[in-house]
Amino acid sequence: MPKLILLRHGQSEWNEKNLFTGWVDVSLSDVGRKEAKRAGELLKESGIKPDILFTSRLTRAIQTANIALEHAGYSYIDVERSWRLNERHYGALQGKDKAQTLEQYGPEQFQTWRRSFDVPPPVIEDDSEFSQANDERYALIDPAVLPKTESLALVIDRFLPFWQDVIAKQLLEGKTVIIAAHGNSLRGLVKHLDNISDSEIAGLNIPTGIPLVYELDAQLKPTKPSYYLDPEAAAAGAAAVANQGKK
Amino acid sequence: MPKLILLRHGQSEWNEKNLFTGWVDVSLSDVGRKEAKRAGELLKESGIKPDILFTSRLTRAIQTANIALEHAGYSYIDVERSWRLNERHYGALQGKDKAQTLEQYGPEQFQTWRRSFDVPPPVIEDDSEFSQANDERYALIDPAVLPKTESLALVIDRFLPFWQDVIAKQLLEGKTVIIAAHGNSLRGLVKHLDNISDSEIAGLNIPTGIPLVYELDAQLKPTKPSYYLDPEAAAAGAAAVANQGKK
Repeated sequence: MPKLILLRHGQSEWNEKNLFTGWVDVSLSDVGRKEAKRAGELLKESGIKPDILFTSRLTRAIQTANIALEHAGYSYIDVERSWRLNERHYGALQGKDKAQTLEQYGPEQFQTWRRSFDVPPPVIEDDSEFSQANDERYALIDPAVLPKTESLALVIDRFLPFWQDVIAKQLLEGKTVIIAAHGNSLRGLVKHLDNISDSEIAGLNIPTGIPLVYELDAQLKPTKPSYYLDPEAAAAGAAAVANQGKK
Repeated sequence: MPKLILLRHGQSEWNEKNLFTGWVDVSLSDVGRKEAKRAGELLKESGIKPDILFTSRLTRAIQTANIALEHAGYSYIDVERSWRLNERHYGALQGKDKAQTLEQYGPEQFQTWRRSFDVPPPVIEDDSEFSQANDERYALIDPAVLPKTESLALVIDRFLPFWQDVIAKQLLEGKTVIIAAHGNSLRGLVKHLDNISDSEIAGLNIPTGIPLVYELDAQLKPTKPSYYLDPEAAAAGAAAVANQGKK
């Protein structure tokens, strides 16, 4: 029975500053590093041994995975990275203060950009200091598919092919997979796995730093509800995420 | 012109204790973590940007790579791990104190085990606490090819196929490759690249934590002598390695 572990990275230097981050490549804060360590301890205690790690191309998810696997004693497992696991591209909001954006545009527009299923923020200009147009790590990818803004719907569109072609293959070979990624790429996957509707996904918040486990059947459908390795901390964490932006 | 960067891991918890380590999976010491950080800074200053990382399956090499790439700003590059990059298997010496082994067996036998080209130490028993016979990370590998002791010659025998089939392919595609590995797997590679004789390789010591750069031609032959990113520290480091065991 294939097992899948989802791990959302902990606090980054920009979460700490309450800025929209998206594809901007910032590091974990000290709090985020502690969250990653705790995730590794939870993983070790659970006895669930991953065989392969998937990460985004963003440092904060990679650091989270490195620290967690080190503390779990599983540093040696295989690794594969893809931009398709990246956080949602926040378009022209990248680099902006969340509280200031809320004040400037009002709660309705703010909430639409953060939580609507298919309304992306305005596109980012290539010459913005927060654009990834000239980021070497994406140099070999067709510019036509690299986003300049994304809704959650667009995140799912670019993530699902990687799930179907690459991650699913590992699970179907019987591997236990761990994915270290981001709030929105993981929400997209949870929506897919749990068959959550476009309207209901808005209310789903994935807490940071707490491994979320899926046990899947041979069609990669959950055989039972997914569970967090620390359910109490997960409930508190999800509430904290829901309150983000309300500084 | 393909570029290759070799990085030997820094001090581990067992280097610190002066024990033969081999395939025993110990972590970096705090000194080793600092060496890895310095390696990352040197890499960043050099302007050489790796495209893909190869590591052994041993935590100390993986930690070295993770820390170095984090400090260089290249955490996001592709990663591939293989047991074929592991340190030499030290057989029955694994877990033994180096100074005590020197005293017990005398300088000649000690030096033969450490530096002869093709004399391996006695094999390790499967039920030794320092054996990897039941280590899950090697579970999918044919037991017939997994070593229970190795000379440098045997290390080269199991490393070269991975070099020829996997690493060379990346270099020939024009990728800049970084390999984070161990004293003896890297000595084997340097012997191959620089065409060093079986007798002369005994005198070659690779310092820890200092990136060693090869610029290669289309036949993967060096176009000029390899160079360390910090030549002064490398000379001092190589001398320190040569004196190991003389506590």
